[in-house]
Amino acid sequence: MTSSALVQDQFLKVLSREEAIARFRGALELRPLGAESVRLEGLVGRVLAETVAAPVDAPPFDRSVVDGFAVLASDVAGASEESPAWLALTPETIACGTQPRLPVIAGHATPIATGGPIPRGADAVVMIEHTRFENGRLAVMRASAPGQNISFAGSDIARGETLLRRGTLLGSREVGMLAAVGAAEAKVWRKPRVAVISTGDELVAPGEALRPAAIYDSNGPIVAAALEENGCEPVRFGAIPDVATALAAAIREAHATCDAVILSGGTSKGAGDLTYTMVESLGWPGIIAHGVALKPGKPLCLAVCEGKPVVILPGFPTSAMFTFHDIVAPVLRILAGLPERAEIGVPARVPTRIPSDLGRTEFVMVALAEGPEGRVAHPVGKGSGAVTAFAQADGFLTIDALSDALPAGTQTEVTLFAPHIAAPSLTIMGSHCVGLDAVIDRLSDRGLTARSLALGSLGGLSALKRGECDIAPIHLLDPQSGTYNTPFLGEGLRLVPGWRRMQGLVHRADDPRFAGVGSVDDLVARALADPDCLMVNRNQGAGTRVLIDLLLKGAKPPGYWNQPRSHNAVAAAVAQERADWGMTIAPVAAAAGLAFLPHAEEHYDFAVSATPRGEALAAFEAAVTEAAADLKRIGFTPAGKG
Amino acid sequence: MTSSALVQDQFLKVLSREEAIARFRGALELRPLGAESVRLEGLVGRVLAETVAAPVDAPPFDRSVVDGFAVLASDVAGASEESPAWLALTPETIACGTQPRLPVIAGHATPIATGGPIPRGADAVVMIEHTRFENGRLAVMRASAPGQNISFAGSDIARGETLLRRGTLLGSREVGMLAAVGAAEAKVWRKPRVAVISTGDELVAPGEALRPAAIYDSNGPIVAAALEENGCEPVRFGAIPDVATALAAAIREAHATCDAVILSGGTSKGAGDLTYTMVESLGWPGIIAHGVALKPGKPLCLAVCEGKPVVILPGFPTSAMFTFHDIVAPVLRILAGLPERAEIGVPARVPTRIPSDLGRTEFVMVALAEGPEGRVAHPVGKGSGAVTAFAQADGFLTIDALSDALPAGTQTEVTLFAPHIAAPSLTIMGSHCVGLDAVIDRLSDRGLTARSLALGSLGGLSALKRGECDIAPIHLLDPQSGTYNTPFLGEGLRLVPGWRRMQGLVHRADDPRFAGVGSVDDLVARALADPDCLMVNRNQGAGTRVLIDLLLKGAKPPGYWNQPRSHNAVAAAVAQERADWGMTIAPVAAAAGLAFLPHAEEHYDFAVSATPRGEALAAFEAAVTEAAADLKRIGFTPAGKG
Repeated sequence: MTSSALVQDQFLKVLSREEAIARFRGALELRPLGAESVRLEGLVGRVLAETVAAPVDAPPFDRSVVDGFAVLASDVAGASEESPAWLALTPETIACGTQPRLPVIAGHATPIATGGPIPRGADAVVMIEHTRFENGRLAVMRASAPGQNISFAGSDIARGETLLRRGTLLGSREVGMLAAVGAAEAKVWRKPRVAVISTGDELVAPGEALRPAAIYDSNGPIVAAALEENGCEPVRFGAIPDVATALAAAIREAHATCDAVILSGGTSKGAGDLTYTMVESLGWPGIIAHGVALKPGKPLCLAVCEGKPVVILPGFPTSAMFTFHDIVAPVLRILAGLPERAEIGVPARVPTRIPSDLGRTEFVMVALAEGPEGRVAHPVGKGSGAVTAFAQADGFLTIDALSDALPAGTQTEVTLFAPHIAAPSLTIMGSHCVGLDAVIDRLSDRGLTARSLALGSLGGLSALKRGECDIAPIHLLDPQSGTYNTPFLGEGLRLVPGWRRMQGLVHRADDPRFAGVGSVDDLVARALADPDCLMVNRNQGAGTRVLIDLLLKGAKPPGYWNQPRSHNAVAAAVAQERADWGMTIAPVAAAAGLAFLPHAEEHYDFAVSATPRGEALAAFEAAVTEAAADLKRIGFTPAGKG
Repeated sequence: MTSSALVQDQFLKVLSREEAIARFRGALELRPLGAESVRLEGLVGRVLAETVAAPVDAPPFDRSVVDGFAVLASDVAGASEESPAWLALTPETIACGTQPRLPVIAGHATPIATGGPIPRGADAVVMIEHTRFENGRLAVMRASAPGQNISFAGSDIARGETLLRRGTLLGSREVGMLAAVGAAEAKVWRKPRVAVISTGDELVAPGEALRPAAIYDSNGPIVAAALEENGCEPVRFGAIPDVATALAAAIREAHATCDAVILSGGTSKGAGDLTYTMVESLGWPGIIAHGVALKPGKPLCLAVCEGKPVVILPGFPTSAMFTFHDIVAPVLRILAGLPERAEIGVPARVPTRIPSDLGRTEFVMVALAEGPEGRVAHPVGKGSGAVTAFAQADGFLTIDALSDALPAGTQTEVTLFAPHIAAPSLTIMGSHCVGLDAVIDRLSDRGLTARSLALGSLGGLSALKRGECDIAPIHLLDPQSGTYNTPFLGEGLRLVPGWRRMQGLVHRADDPRFAGVGSVDDLVARALADPDCLMVNRNQGAGTRVLIDLLLKGAKPPGYWNQPRSHNAVAAAVAQERADWGMTIAPVAAAAGLAFLPHAEEHYDFAVSATPRGEALAAFEAAVTEAAADLKRIGFTPAGKG
């Protein structure tokens, strides 16, 4: 990529979502690819390609639906406990699979098992429970209507009747129906074979070691899995570097041998255009949309080459997933003969304003919580590169291209990822700490689930006051009083003591600038003296930021504006030499292999409602205590009973 | 089976549903069977057996989320269209996978692609859209905040943080999360291997020819498919005859090699007790429930042998399915580590009284329809042997053991079979005719769907008048006027002409009693003269029954009380020599290979609301016309415009 390429590319035309979809679909033949015969064993999840009529009657003969005696209804008319009808037994017993030889004649009864064929002459079956046996004769103690306890031939389904219609999604019940009429196989739509190719020099396959500047290929596995979920057969080509010959060969083979090709990576406008050139060369009409007004997902590229869809998904996994599900999957489902994916929407209110780009259809992942005024949808996005946001989200909401924001309090609809909202035993919103995992593990041992959303200390306190969560983890230092957390509680809340985290300064152990550094103040002094020495700060509002600003006493050394949002990002920046020093907590420093100068112990506690204390909350408090050993191992100091 | 065995067996103890479940669960260790490592490619639908913590930071370094230029935020403070900040380019371009070599120093900018690592010194990325290039220098036309367009290391997930918890059901999103932190495989609960054995001399495998008195094995395929749907691996043993040695060997092998055994058939109290004896011999504690107060499903037998569940499901497919889903599947899901199946219930009203056995928990399959007063649940059961009832049912309702009926109008809850109610374009309730399939096929060509429920002519008319269906197919002869259907319409309904079906008498062509028979009256006269000659009648209320009674002029010959509910059952009874003559329609007689004496043409028409005529109904009328050729081929005479 050159900077002139960067400049040229920015003029590519961005289509609206609707226009892009219309062009993509317009260039394809939207129908199932073809049918194949599949045996009963392989039919679950497949779609019938032809309507099936019953080739035989089911049941094939009149049969008994109970254990008892085949009789003539007229023989037992008026029978009762007090005045039974007395019958002789026909000298034959009808089990399942027994073809009756003798007719039932007046005054007689033939023993018959459930499922046994009704013998000639009989027109009812008396249940064994309504008979008794005395002196070689059968006493029938209840009257029977003609046809009683008989399932007549063809009453389930008659020969020639439609059993299942083309387009039916087959499950166990449908497999049973096919088996009942003797079908050993069925014609179903064949699964589209879809090539999955990740492109990019930066990609490393999961399981291998990461090189510097490299990341793991998550798009390949996620797209392949999403294809399976949508009735397609993924053909995995793996991650291929941006080398023209290798990439061209893979793309050509994929297009020649598969029904569709999905590439990912290399679609942002600044990336090399090797992939586009190759896609264009696959045939008519080629690329029909490059750049779609979606967020995330703008770099999406849609092509149709010789009747086959060829798609270049954006490189970031969440962008790739949203564009795949919104635009690509519906088309692949038609090729697979599957019905539209049934989306389940639930109403919810947004607690805070969600800004949105005017002119782009925006998808925002949200976690649902129950508030006193109904369901609330909290955005959980950590940026379009954050694949773990999926773990916390119940679904997503869509902001129209014509809207520049959803104001706080807007009632909207959330499309669920799964048919059910996972309702956790406890909802935790506030500052996140790795120690929280140890507590949630203990809760899990007690059969309780917790959903934890990182909203920051103040965000968590607000949600707790609004009644949208049960627990708000906070670590807020009041500079006036020098005390943690309690000054921020306000009325109606109390504090469950959590643990102490040692904050300190980190540097690379081999950095000559800090050789023999003796204290936090010593380190800051050395750093400020060297204009080439870069710090890494923390975001405004973080507890750690307060400590840093106190240490710097108003100085803003180089790197001050580098303000990541987590302890780990600080450690990574120093370890990777993007910065030389910063403040983080002891366990994170140790994990990153950095030298650590302790500075101050921070209090990480839990704000909860003062009344009443439910069972789940009591279990949470117990879990905090039980997690003490785990917390110590991580490097935290349990606070004990406050 | 002997009749004395029949008598003894009736004293087996029937347990309540709750007691049977408690005993079954109490005898088992209810926990997942064990874990296994599975590669990413095989993880969809599996359940995590251990909590996964991120082994690396994701992203592993600070990276750009846009295409643009890495800068110092302080260099572009206050930049605007009118007054851009002018920067020199660092002589390096950062693509994905490029490890930066040069720091960004004041007054400089480094071109960077989406996903590229942020070079040392930079604390923001300016989007390419907000820059222009002039005379070798970069004009930045918008200010950037520190951190803008940077995804910091570990901001998605930090090393050591919990990524996914034990017990998580894995889908594409979770597979993506695992890949993003470099996991190539995950520990998941292994799938229980469950043996599926159908027992019974009467069973024939689908695909083979039916013997007399035999039926197809549908329980084997349906149970195997239901096991797949519940996270188990079915091990298919096929259908095994009730031969002690073969059956014993199969059951022993199944118990030795699998985690659970599901037998079906042979459980009714009257059947041979070969299977029970063998199950008892498998080990401690053996059978713990035999007979459960369920309808359908009373003959269910539950055993636990040496820690493994061994279940004998009832022989009828619907009974087998209800007991499997209600009692067996929840236990197998625990062994598979799966969460409880998420059942979706919807409220609905029952239109007519549904009787129920006191003391038995009863499951009633229902089809849902929208009525003017809300959702209505129509029972669709055709008896517990009727597997095709599943095709018409949206779900089932449960009647408590303490209740002897649901009165008409009861508001109840329907548990859906699938998460969505299939809302057809048209709901058809009334008399069923095989010709209707031809019409629905034509509708389907127009993209419309129809749900057809067989409620009989009068049942359909009532439902239509209550507004619960769109179309009521009827064939009702008014004996006074001798005209069909119109006298029954009442106010507000009109008739769409359907077709004529020739009714007539059938007999076996080689039956000497009817050699050379010349007319319907001749046949009836010969039949009445022979006391060994058996008729087969039709049910009270059927149009055909009216014709038969008119022919018989008050006579009730042998077989009169044999009153099946369908044209096919009549033909099957005669063909299989369970009766010698009866009345059915011409195409059914032909399909059964019977001699046919035509008697009278019956009018099968459609009652619909007189106003207004919607698009779907217009399409239906057109489809009736279009189906004319198909109807003629079947043997019906289209009525044409009435």
